[in-house]
Amino acid sequence: MNRREPLGIAVIGAGRMGADHVRRIDRVISGARVAAVVDLDGERAKAVAAGVDGCTAHTDAAEVMASADVDAVLVASSGPAHEAALLTAFAHDLPVLCEKPLTPDAASALRVMEAEQALGHRRVQVGFMRRYDTEYVRLKALLATGQLGRPLMLHNRHRNVASPPFFTSSMLISDSVAHEVDATRWLLGHEITAVTVLRPVPSSGAPEGLRDPQFVVLETDGGALSDVEIFVNCGFGYQVQAEAVCERGTARIGDGHQLVTNMAGRWGGTIAQDWTERFAQAYDAEVQAWVDATRRGEVTGPSTWDGYAAAAVCEAGVRALEEGGRATVELAEKPALYRAEA
Amino acid sequence: MNRREPLGIAVIGAGRMGADHVRRIDRVISGARVAAVVDLDGERAKAVAAGVDGCTAHTDAAEVMASADVDAVLVASSGPAHEAALLTAFAHDLPVLCEKPLTPDAASALRVMEAEQALGHRRVQVGFMRRYDTEYVRLKALLATGQLGRPLMLHNRHRNVASPPFFTSSMLISDSVAHEVDATRWLLGHEITAVTVLRPVPSSGAPEGLRDPQFVVLETDGGALSDVEIFVNCGFGYQVQAEAVCERGTARIGDGHQLVTNMAGRWGGTIAQDWTERFAQAYDAEVQAWVDATRRGEVTGPSTWDGYAAAAVCEAGVRALEEGGRATVELAEKPALYRAEA
Amino acid sequence: MNRREPLGIAVIGAGRMGADHVRRIDRVISGARVAAVVDLDGERAKAVAAGVDGCTAHTDAAEVMASADVDAVLVASSGPAHEAALLTAFAHDLPVLCEKPLTPDAASALRVMEAEQALGHRRVQVGFMRRYDTEYVRLKALLATGQLGRPLMLHNRHRNVASPPFFTSSMLISDSVAHEVDATRWLLGHEITAVTVLRPVPSSGAPEGLRDPQFVVLETDGGALSDVEIFVNCGFGYQVQAEAVCERGTARIGDGHQLVTNMAGRWGGTIAQDWTERFAQAYDAEVQAWVDATRRGEVTGPSTWDGYAAAAVCEAGVRALEEGGRATVELAEKPALYRAEA
Amino acid sequence: MNRREPLGIAVIGAGRMGADHVRRIDRVISGARVAAVVDLDGERAKAVAAGVDGCTAHTDAAEVMASADVDAVLVASSGPAHEAALLTAFAHDLPVLCEKPLTPDAASALRVMEAEQALGHRRVQVGFMRRYDTEYVRLKALLATGQLGRPLMLHNRHRNVASPPFFTSSMLISDSVAHEVDATRWLLGHEITAVTVLRPVPSSGAPEGLRDPQFVVLETDGGALSDVEIFVNCGFGYQVQAEAVCERGTARIGDGHQLVTNMAGRWGGTIAQDWTERFAQAYDAEVQAWVDATRRGEVTGPSTWDGYAAAAVCEAGVRALEEGGRATVELAEKPALYRAEA
Repeated sequence: MNRREPLGIAVIGAGRMGADHVRRIDRVISGARVAAVVDLDGERAKAVAAGVDGCTAHTDAAEVMASADVDAVLVASSGPAHEAALLTAFAHDLPVLCEKPLTPDAASALRVMEAEQALGHRRVQVGFMRRYDTEYVRLKALLATGQLGRPLMLHNRHRNVASPPFFTSSMLISDSVAHEVDATRWLLGHEITAVTVLRPVPSSGAPEGLRDPQFVVLETDGGALSDVEIFVNCGFGYQVQAEAVCERGTARIGDGHQLVTNMAGRWGGTIAQDWTERFAQAYDAEVQAWVDATRRGEVTGPSTWDGYAAAAVCEAGVRALEEGGRATVELAEKPALYRAEA
Repeated sequence: MNRREPLGIAVIGAGRMGADHVRRIDRVISGARVAAVVDLDGERAKAVAAGVDGCTAHTDAAEVMASADVDAVLVASSGPAHEAALLTAFAHDLPVLCEKPLTPDAASALRVMEAEQALGHRRVQVGFMRRYDTEYVRLKALLATGQLGRPLMLHNRHRNVASPPFFTSSMLISDSVAHEVDATRWLLGHEITAVTVLRPVPSSGAPEGLRDPQFVVLETDGGALSDVEIFVNCGFGYQVQAEAVCERGTARIGDGHQLVTNMAGRWGGTIAQDWTERFAQAYDAEVQAWVDATRRGEVTGPSTWDGYAAAAVCEAGVRALEEGGRATVELAEKPALYRAEA
Repeated sequence: MNRREPLGIAVIGAGRMGADHVRRIDRVISGARVAAVVDLDGERAKAVAAGVDGCTAHTDAAEVMASADVDAVLVASSGPAHEAALLTAFAHDLPVLCEKPLTPDAASALRVMEAEQALGHRRVQVGFMRRYDTEYVRLKALLATGQLGRPLMLHNRHRNVASPPFFTSSMLISDSVAHEVDATRWLLGHEITAVTVLRPVPSSGAPEGLRDPQFVVLETDGGALSDVEIFVNCGFGYQVQAEAVCERGTARIGDGHQLVTNMAGRWGGTIAQDWTERFAQAYDAEVQAWVDATRRGEVTGPSTWDGYAAAAVCEAGVRALEEGGRATVELAEKPALYRAEA
Repeated sequence: MNRREPLGIAVIGAGRMGADHVRRIDRVISGARVAAVVDLDGERAKAVAAGVDGCTAHTDAAEVMASADVDAVLVASSGPAHEAALLTAFAHDLPVLCEKPLTPDAASALRVMEAEQALGHRRVQVGFMRRYDTEYVRLKALLATGQLGRPLMLHNRHRNVASPPFFTSSMLISDSVAHEVDATRWLLGHEITAVTVLRPVPSSGAPEGLRDPQFVVLETDGGALSDVEIFVNCGFGYQVQAEAVCERGTARIGDGHQLVTNMAGRWGGTIAQDWTERFAQAYDAEVQAWVDATRRGEVTGPSTWDGYAAAAVCEAGVRALEEGGRATVELAEKPALYRAEA
C-alpha cells in the first residue's frame, strides 16, 4: 500500500466504544476517515454516522466489507460477534483493529488464529491499548534497557469507582484482569503458566453477591510473578498502577500528579473517575498506530496470538476463582506466523 | 465557513519551528493539510515540503497567500518578519496562527493591532501554547471555580538545560520570561503594571557575560504579584513550574511524575531535557484548536492584544534588567475588538 | 510504682542490638539509666558498659536480676536465650522489654505465655517496634476512624540492600516477614489463619541457593488478605511500605520524601540504606514508651500473645515455603490475660 | 565541666513556650532536669512547676540564677525581657539557651554581644531551631558537599493557618520572616545586605488592616538571592518549604509525605496545622544539643552574633515594608569571638 489518501474505515458496532472510536477517527486521528458505521440496530448506526462527513450507516457488516470504499475494519461490537466479523474481514483480506477480547473464549480464538494463518500474513491488531499508554511504554522501554536487571515481580493495582449492573464475579477476571494479563505478558515477555485467585471478604460497597475485590497471582514461564489487585467498586476513583520489581531496582507507573493543591488541611490532587480520562491518550495512540501501519501495508501491535493467550489465561483464572486456589494454563504451540513478535 | 474539507495551510518559515509545525499538521492534526511551505531559503522550503503529499515549496509568501489553495497561514518565520507576513495575511483576510512573539517590540505590535482592527474582526491567534497545556488548563480551570479564593501570588520556575550560543541577557526576559508574562496575564486575568528584575551572581555554568539566572517580579493591576525564576543554563533539565497562592489555598503544576524508579540508593524519575517533551501535547492542542476554530469560521485563543501586551511588558523588563530595579509598563487603551476576551 | 527516680535497667546481650539500646537509654531516653550490661562474653559486656556512668558489666543474668539496683530488664540476647531470661525476670517479677522474636518457636512462646499467666499480670512488652513508628501509627489511627471503611487488603513491601552471610531462605519468613506478620495483626486486628509462599525465580543478586525474593500471602480470620514482597538483596536501599485497601479508600505509608533534588536529568531523593535510618524514631519511641509505662507500674504494647502468634504464623510460613503453596496456622486459645488488648 | 549528673536548668518565662520547654526537659530530654521555673506571675510559675519532680517556682530570675542548684538558664520570657535576663546570666557565667528573638532590636542585641565579649567566651545559644530540623540539616549537608555547585537563589514559603489577634504587619517580618533570615544566613553562609518587601493586595482572609501576605527578597554579600513568601492567614495549614537553586541542580525540603490516601476522588495527605507538629523534632534536638554541649562545657549553635544579625535585617525589613521597596542592612564589624563559627 503506502498510500497517501486517508484510510476509509468501517466501524463495526455503534455502542459506547464504537461511537467513541468513530469520534476519534473523525476528529483526532490523522490520515483516516470513517467510511461506514455498522450496527444490527440501524437507528443506532445512523445516529452515530450522522455527524460524520462522507460516512454511511449500515446493518450488514459483510456487505460493507465488500465495498471498495472500505480499506480497513475496526471491530467494536460485542465479544461474541467478533469471530464472524474477523472471518469476514479475512475473506476480504482487510486489516482489522479488534477491540478486546479477541473472542470470548480460547477455542474461538484458536479458530480465528488458524484462519489468519491460512491467509499467510497477520491482519489483526488486538485492542490492548495499554501497550500505547505513555507510562506503560516508558516502563517497557526502561525494562528493555536492562538497567534494572531482570524483572522478578510485577505488582498491579486496577481500581474502578463502580461496576456496571451486569458485572459478575468472573468478569473481574475476564473483563478487567484481562488487561493485566496482556500487560504482564507484554512487559515481561513471558507466557503465563498458572493463575491463583484469592478472595478477601467482599467490600460492603460491592453489589450483593459480587466477589469484589479479588487478588490474582499470575505465574510465568520465565519464573516471574505478577500479582493483581482488582477492585471494581472501590468508590474513590479509577486507578491503574504497576510496579516492576527487578534484580537491581524497581519502577512504578500510575501515580502521575499533574496538579497538586493545598487546601483546608490537605495536600493532594484529584483522581480520574474513569478510563476515558486516564487512557484517552492511549486509545488515540493505538488507533493512530494502526492507521499508520495499515497505510504502510503492515500489521503491528498485539496479535491474534496475544488475544488467544489472554483468553486462555482468563479461562484458567475464572476456573481458579470458581474452584478456589490455583489453575494451570495450557497454551497451544505458538504458530510460526507469530513467532517473530517481541 | 464550517467546512468539511481539510484546511489548506501555508506555513511561513521552514526553520526548526516551522518544520515541526509542518510535521504536526501532516501527521498529527486532524482536519488540516499543509498546502505550501514558504522560506526565503528555497532549498530549505523544498526539503521540508518534500515529505508531504500535495505540498508545494515557495520563497514568496505574498504570492502563496494569494493562492486559492491556501485557507489559513501559520507564521513561524523569525520575529522581525512577522509584521509583514501578518499584514499580507490581513490583506487576504486569512486566519493566522502566529508564533510568539507577535512582533519583536510594542510599537510594531501596535501597528499590527491597528491593522486587525481595520479589518473589523479578529484574524490572529498568537502562539502562546501554554494556554493549551493540560496542566496549565487545569490550573486555570481550578482558579475559575473560585474554590481557592482570589489569587494573591504566582510563583514561576522556568529552567533550561543550556542556552543557545546567540542568547543575550535581555533574551532571558524577551524570549523566555515572555511565556510567564502571558501565563500570568492569562491565569490571573490582570494586566501587568511594573517589572522588577533582580540579578543574583551568575552561575559559573552560564556563558561568560550572560546574566543567568535572573529573578523577575511582575506587579499586576489586580494587586497580585507574579515572580519568575528564569535560569537558562541550569544544566539538569527543562522544568516549567507554577504555583498559584490564593486566599484559601494553593495549586501547583509542573511536578508531573510518570515513572518513578528505585535504584542504587535513590528514588525518583527523569526530567525532560527540552520543551519538545514537556510541551508536545500543548503544541498539538494549540494547532488543533486553531484548525477547529478556523473551520468553524471563528478566531479564538491568545489575541493580537495579548501579543502586544507581552511585548510591552518584555520591553519594560529589559529596561529593568539594564537599569537595575523596577520599570513601569505603559499600555495603550484596550480596543473594543479585544474587550470581549476573557 | 509511679516512681520519680530514673529506672535502673539491666540490658541482657551486648551485641549490635544490645549496644544500641544501651546507647539509646543512656543518651536519648528520658527517665531511665543503664544499671547493668550482661553478656556471656564478659569483655564485650565491659566494652559496652565502659562509656556509661554508674553502669556495671556482668556475665550472669540471674545474679543481675536479683540486684536491688535493677528495676527492669531489656532482653537483647540471641533468640534461643530469650526463654531463660524471661523466666528469670518473671521469678523477680521484673518488667521486660524483649527484642523480637519472643522465642524462636511457637512451643517455647507458649511456655513463656503460661509462665506469665501464672504471675497473674503482664510483664512483657515484645520488641515489635513498627507499632511505634510515626507512619504506622498514623495509618493505624486513620483505620481506627472508620473513614475508609473496613480494610480488605494490605499490600506490604519489605526490601533490604543485602542479606547477611548467615541468612537462609526460611529466615526471610521468620526474621523479616515476622515484622509484617505483627503489623498485619496489629493494623487489621485479625489473627492470621493461613500462609501461602510464592517463590519467583531468585534474583541473580542473591547469594547462591537463597530463595530471594519471596511473595507471601497471609489470610486472616476477618477475611482480609495481606500480601508481602520480601526481597532482602534488592541492592538499592532499605524500604518498608504498606498500603491498606479499604472499602472506601486506600492509605499508603513508606514513601516519605524529606529532600527532593533536581540534578543531571533526574529528580528524586535518597533511599535509606538500613533500618537504623528508617526506624530510629520507632526504636526511641518504643523504649521510651516502655520506660514510661514501667514507671507508672503498667505494661503496654505488644504482648507475649503477640510474640506467640507471630511465632506460630512464621512456623506455618516456613512450612509453606518448604512444601510449596499454602499452610494453615493453628493458634492456642487466647488466654484471658491478653484478651483486653486491642 | 564534662559532668555526669543531670544539668539543673532554670526556665525563665512560664508562658506557652516556657511551659513547653519545661515539659520537654522533664519528659523528653536526656541528661537534664528542670530545677526552677521563673515568671513574674508567681501563680503561673507554680502551675508549670507543679508537675515536675524537684522543681521550684519563683518570681525573681536574679535570685534563681544565684542558686547553686542552677547550672544553666533557658530564657523563654517575652522579647523585651531578654536583655536583662541575659546580662544576669552573664554575671553568673551561666550558659543560656535564649528563645528568638535574642532581643527586639539591633541596638540591644549589640549591647548583649558586647557583654558576652567582655566575658571572653560564648555563653549564648539562640533559639533558631530550624538549624536542628532534620530536613534543613539534610539540605545544609547536601549544599556542603558541593555536588550541586554554588547556591544562587533560595525560594522560601512560610505559611500559617491564622495569625494571633495582636499580630501587626511589621510582625510578619520581625516575628515570622526572622526564621528565614536566619535560615538564609545559615544555609548560604552569607550576610544579608538589603531587603525588599513587596505587598500584594491583602487576602480577604486576613484581619482588616493587616498586610498579609508579603513577598520579601533578601540580597546577600555572596551575590545570592533569597525570596520569602510569608502568608500568616493562609487558612489551610502550616507549611515551611525551601528550595535551594544551585549552579548544577536544586534541592527542596518541606514537602514531606508520610501518609498518602486515596479517597472520594482525591489522593493526598494532611497538612500540619501548626509548628508543634512540623517542628517538634527540631525543638527536641535543639534543647538536647544545648544540654549535651553544656555538659561538655561548650557553647555551640546559633550565636549572639546570629541573633544580632537577624535583628538588624528585620529592622531593615520593617523599614522596607513601611517605606515601600528596598532597604539596605548595616551590620557592625563581626567580633573575633564569633569569627570561628561556620
